[in-house]
Amino acid sequence: MTSPPPNGHMQLALAEAAAAAGRGEVPVGAVVVSREGRVLAAAGNRTRELNDPTAHAEVLAIRAACAGLNSERLTDCDLYVTLEPCPMCATAISFARIRRLYFGAWDPKGGGVDNGPRIFSQETCHHAAEVYGGLDATRAGDLLKAFFAQKR
Amino acid sequence: MTSPPPNGHMQLALAEAAAAAGRGEVPVGAVVVSREGRVLAAAGNRTRELNDPTAHAEVLAIRAACAGLNSERLTDCDLYVTLEPCPMCATAISFARIRRLYFGAWDPKGGGVDNGPRIFSQETCHHAAEVYGGLDATRAGDLLKAFFAQKR
Repeated sequence: MTSPPPNGHMQLALAEAAAAAGRGEVPVGAVVVSREGRVLAAAGNRTRELNDPTAHAEVLAIRAACAGLNSERLTDCDLYVTLEPCPMCATAISFARIRRLYFGAWDPKGGGVDNGPRIFSQETCHHAAEVYGGLDATRAGDLLKAFFAQKR
Repeated sequence: MTSPPPNGHMQLALAEAAAAAGRGEVPVGAVVVSREGRVLAAAGNRTRELNDPTAHAEVLAIRAACAGLNSERLTDCDLYVTLEPCPMCATAISFARIRRLYFGAWDPKGGGVDNGPRIFSQETCHHAAEVYGGLDATRAGDLLKAFFAQKR
């Protein structure tokens, strides 16, 4: 893996994931960071609370960061997310022109970056983020395992 | 094609697309219809107005229909959209459990249903809508062509 050393941004994403679990949501968290390292938005999954199937952590964080910048693009911004994004979120990441995507656990069943449709590798993908997977993957995965074990 | 005869729902989606063009947005419109044929939501693309790269017509219509039903699923509902959905929207359609997807023009450059990642054909796709493409495709395509011709 060629990613830079982990920093506080993934810790913040993990805190958002833990908060999502506390709300009864699938525990995934996401943080958008500017080129200068400023946190522009942080969000956890809220699909149940909002009755919105698109309210994944990544989408909420991207929408909030765009609103804050008054821009539909987040050029040169990076996204930290605790789980490999699904195809919906991966495509939103591409549309937002996110520079680098750092994610925690891989998601063989639902991921769309290194699994499934591998959105950034599609010929019709107009912007591919640089991808660094596996950051704090154990902690991110443990949150999900604990959540689903509790549900059973 | 095995789709039922065209009806007013695609006309409404086309009107939403035309209204989007009037706002300077890429002209795409979408309508969510209940099993009983009731229009639950209609929306046009608003990515520029809202500074939101996820504000495609389909996402806005799905979110509005879910909000109206207080449900994160639109089981047994159908979606009419003037253009083949992109991978983001196709995945959102899957998450929302949309029953049937009727779309107008195919989109070889950006579509994610019959083109690109063909989201519903992915092994990791948990719900595939029934797809009927090509409804009023000429009108839907003409709206897009006129819009982009004007931009050049």
